[in-house]
Amino acid sequence: MAATHPPQFSVITPSSLSSPSPLPMAQDDLKKIAAYKAVEFVESGMVVGLGTGSTAKHAVDRIGELVQQGILTDIIGIPTSTKTHEQALSVNIPLSDLDAHPVLDLAIDGADEVDPDLNLVKGRGGSLLREKMIEFASKKFVVIVDESKLVDHIGGSGLAMPVEIVPFCWKFTAKRLELLFEEADCVAKLRTCEKTGEVFVTDNSNYTIDLYFKKSIGDLKAAGDAILRLPGVVEHGMFVDMATTVIVAGDNGVTVKNKP
Amino acid sequence: MAATHPPQFSVITPSSLSSPSPLPMAQDDLKKIAAYKAVEFVESGMVVGLGTGSTAKHAVDRIGELVQQGILTDIIGIPTSTKTHEQALSVNIPLSDLDAHPVLDLAIDGADEVDPDLNLVKGRGGSLLREKMIEFASKKFVVIVDESKLVDHIGGSGLAMPVEIVPFCWKFTAKRLELLFEEADCVAKLRTCEKTGEVFVTDNSNYTIDLYFKKSIGDLKAAGDAILRLPGVVEHGMFVDMATTVIVAGDNGVTVKNKP
Repeated sequence: MAATHPPQFSVITPSSLSSPSPLPMAQDDLKKIAAYKAVEFVESGMVVGLGTGSTAKHAVDRIGELVQQGILTDIIGIPTSTKTHEQALSVNIPLSDLDAHPVLDLAIDGADEVDPDLNLVKGRGGSLLREKMIEFASKKFVVIVDESKLVDHIGGSGLAMPVEIVPFCWKFTAKRLELLFEEADCVAKLRTCEKTGEVFVTDNSNYTIDLYFKKSIGDLKAAGDAILRLPGVVEHGMFVDMATTVIVAGDNGVTVKNKP
Repeated sequence: MAATHPPQFSVITPSSLSSPSPLPMAQDDLKKIAAYKAVEFVESGMVVGLGTGSTAKHAVDRIGELVQQGILTDIIGIPTSTKTHEQALSVNIPLSDLDAHPVLDLAIDGADEVDPDLNLVKGRGGSLLREKMIEFASKKFVVIVDESKLVDHIGGSGLAMPVEIVPFCWKFTAKRLELLFEEADCVAKLRTCEKTGEVFVTDNSNYTIDLYFKKSIGDLKAAGDAILRLPGVVEHGMFVDMATTVIVAGDNGVTVKNKP
């Protein structure tokens, strides 16, 4: 396996942001900084999980660029969604799947929330199940976010914690989920497409219930198990104890947090 | 709610089998005896979960008969499969679903295995997810089996414990399941249609992996949680702590076992 390649990179580094009074950067620039930093972990010969969403997109583009330049060789990408599959093809990253490569060296993906223990919420982008399958199979999982995604506790952003469920009697399952987190004042909503108003259907032909918590849900592993025990639930968007590294880009530079 | 109706029944009772040297009965007759006994639990006005499979079929027919005769009134049936839905319609049982009736008074269904603690394996018939959703929502769950289904421990029959999974990278998920139960010498097989040899697709458009264990898998709740934690798994066929009554029909009569 080839050596790492940071010296060859023309990465936007934190040092370029270290002027005394930096102007606030656009969120997309921060995402790009985090993504480029994550790609420094990719080495030639690796099997790499390719995330989905606006931050992961930058990482996929960057990997494609380095493959094109011949700086990264023998890379195999495992895309976490049909969307990323198409994007990766368009930038000429050789692709495969979990059946052929059940163990990945590394996965890079964004997240919707990151708590102080590096637990995540993912899936607002709609691909949580495939993401979880692939990242669960990765030796290292590097998460890339801008600092707006940091929370005190899971659910703390007030935004959705998604749960993928089978369409059969979805109202019933949504109600059971709400009752499960009654003490956290949980509200469950069926996800619809913003444009059409129709039910959002996942890559696996399932529905998504977005859970909104007013209070902390406590022990995340216990909460996760309780969700999975509800018949009708396929997967939830909490990624507990999965991230090995989280790269956070903010106006004051990039922070790399490693799982102890 | 109306009173119970056993006196009005022309049920085949254990007493009719209590001759000193009974001839062995056909398995289907035993299934019918257990099913008829279970239907004695049904009262007018109840919302009743209707199971799937060769034993449950007799119960659905019997309920239809009693509805036709006006002995059972105001019954609402909640079918556990598209097949049972059709059967129940054909015998004129009024039907609804979990969304409209999130709490059921009673469910009646067969099982593939019953252990001494009334834990079950279900799903060899192919409808485990809908069955579990409906039976999970039932105040009482009456299981009907012939005595060939009794086992010392779950998996003890040497037959399949089914797991419903998403089709995406199913080989990967099958392998993970096998590894999870390595110590029980587990073998995982994708279910195919006997007639066509094609992949068997569930009511929810998923695949089924049949697990075969050579040894006991130990603590069933822990095993169930471990299965559900694998991303890609939708539901498993162990129904732990769900049955409230098991009715067993054998050559020597009917035994009714209640959950303590």
